[in-house]
Amino acid sequence: MPAVRALIFDVFGTLVDWHGSIARELRQILGPRVSDPAAFAEAWRAQYQPAMQAVRSGALPFCKLDLLHRHNLDRVLADLKLDDVDEATRQQLNLAWHRLDAWPDVAPALHRLRPHFRIAPCSNGNISLMVDLARRNDLPWDAILGAELARDYKPKPEVYLNAAAAFDCAPAEVVMVACHSSDLAAAAACGLRTAHVARPDEHGPGRGERRAETPVDHQAHDLLQLCEQLGV
Amino acid sequence: MPAVRALIFDVFGTLVDWHGSIARELRQILGPRVSDPAAFAEAWRAQYQPAMQAVRSGALPFCKLDLLHRHNLDRVLADLKLDDVDEATRQQLNLAWHRLDAWPDVAPALHRLRPHFRIAPCSNGNISLMVDLARRNDLPWDAILGAELARDYKPKPEVYLNAAAAFDCAPAEVVMVACHSSDLAAAAACGLRTAHVARPDEHGPGRGERRAETPVDHQAHDLLQLCEQLGV
Repeated sequence: MPAVRALIFDVFGTLVDWHGSIARELRQILGPRVSDPAAFAEAWRAQYQPAMQAVRSGALPFCKLDLLHRHNLDRVLADLKLDDVDEATRQQLNLAWHRLDAWPDVAPALHRLRPHFRIAPCSNGNISLMVDLARRNDLPWDAILGAELARDYKPKPEVYLNAAAAFDCAPAEVVMVACHSSDLAAAAACGLRTAHVARPDEHGPGRGERRAETPVDHQAHDLLQLCEQLGV
Repeated sequence: MPAVRALIFDVFGTLVDWHGSIARELRQILGPRVSDPAAFAEAWRAQYQPAMQAVRSGALPFCKLDLLHRHNLDRVLADLKLDDVDEATRQQLNLAWHRLDAWPDVAPALHRLRPHFRIAPCSNGNISLMVDLARRNDLPWDAILGAELARDYKPKPEVYLNAAAAFDCAPAEVVMVACHSSDLAAAAACGLRTAHVARPDEHGPGRGERRAETPVDHQAHDLLQLCEQLGV
């Protein structure tokens, strides 16, 4: 096996607590109008895969995740009989995805990895969303790779292969890091190495993957343990 | 006019001294086999626009600048009767473009700008080349925008418009910064603001643009003066 030269990261769930952050933003922006912010967050996120599937299948041309999030938000608001939420509030709500908080191990681990490896997000989130999360959480990326560069959505092979190619790496020189087995299985099928990081509280307390459900090269309970496994 | 939200930068010449750095690398790698490193650097760079034109015109599909640089290097070596330079040395020479030194004002100015604006290169150089220059010269980019993201080469409008869109900005919210009037004229035609930075020694002492030869929004003698003009 060639030496590892780069690590690329899933972001929603793996690096940032979307569930807790979106619920917090919903409470702050909608106040008592939303009775169960965690359920709203789950409902919004549940629209995520079907919306991207329209792009993956070729039914829709590529568009930024911000646009899909907005379409999904409008559906959830309609389902919850909150049609009177105005346009400015909807825009403010949609940008909640740009204000997610990272898990506490993330920034220290990325700063430990960066002297040794090229590092980038390989997310379905768009570039501006990744930039805002990086600034908010001090994530020292070399570049923003992922869906907007590849113009398609994970788990399509092009997204992983395009990220490796952007770093001038063979797939086997790159580790895909994620807390979702499906993401890692797709990366492994493209020849990338894989690291599963447990995020057992991704969907709220006790509701997340504790271990990979697919063969992986590394299994870690957080990114700092992954640093140790990689010898940095 | 809307407020400025982002600055995007030309890189070769504007931020880094390609002429002096390539001549240095040629001396180090080829030694006495190259009699005039500065002339070699100029000859190599002279192939740059014609090579990109094949992509701009649609005659060639998009490929990374590293590949065009390599093709051009082989031509220059043949012209100079240096056909016996071996493959490993050619690869080492081609990566000289990843080892260019920034002008001394660049890193301090980008660190001053970053708290106030989104910043990114908008170069014809590929992502891995930009990453290596950023690491070498401490350039704190938010993202790597430019040709590889747009899949075309400046001065095609798509490259400037794609960079603004990646930052969720209207063209008039973005300043294109360059030391080449042709680059700024193309950006202005897309609705971007423009800043010309003088690099009078780009092609060697006294051989570079001292002032813009096209209307621009800002004219500065270096990037630190541009910071002052932008009030940061």
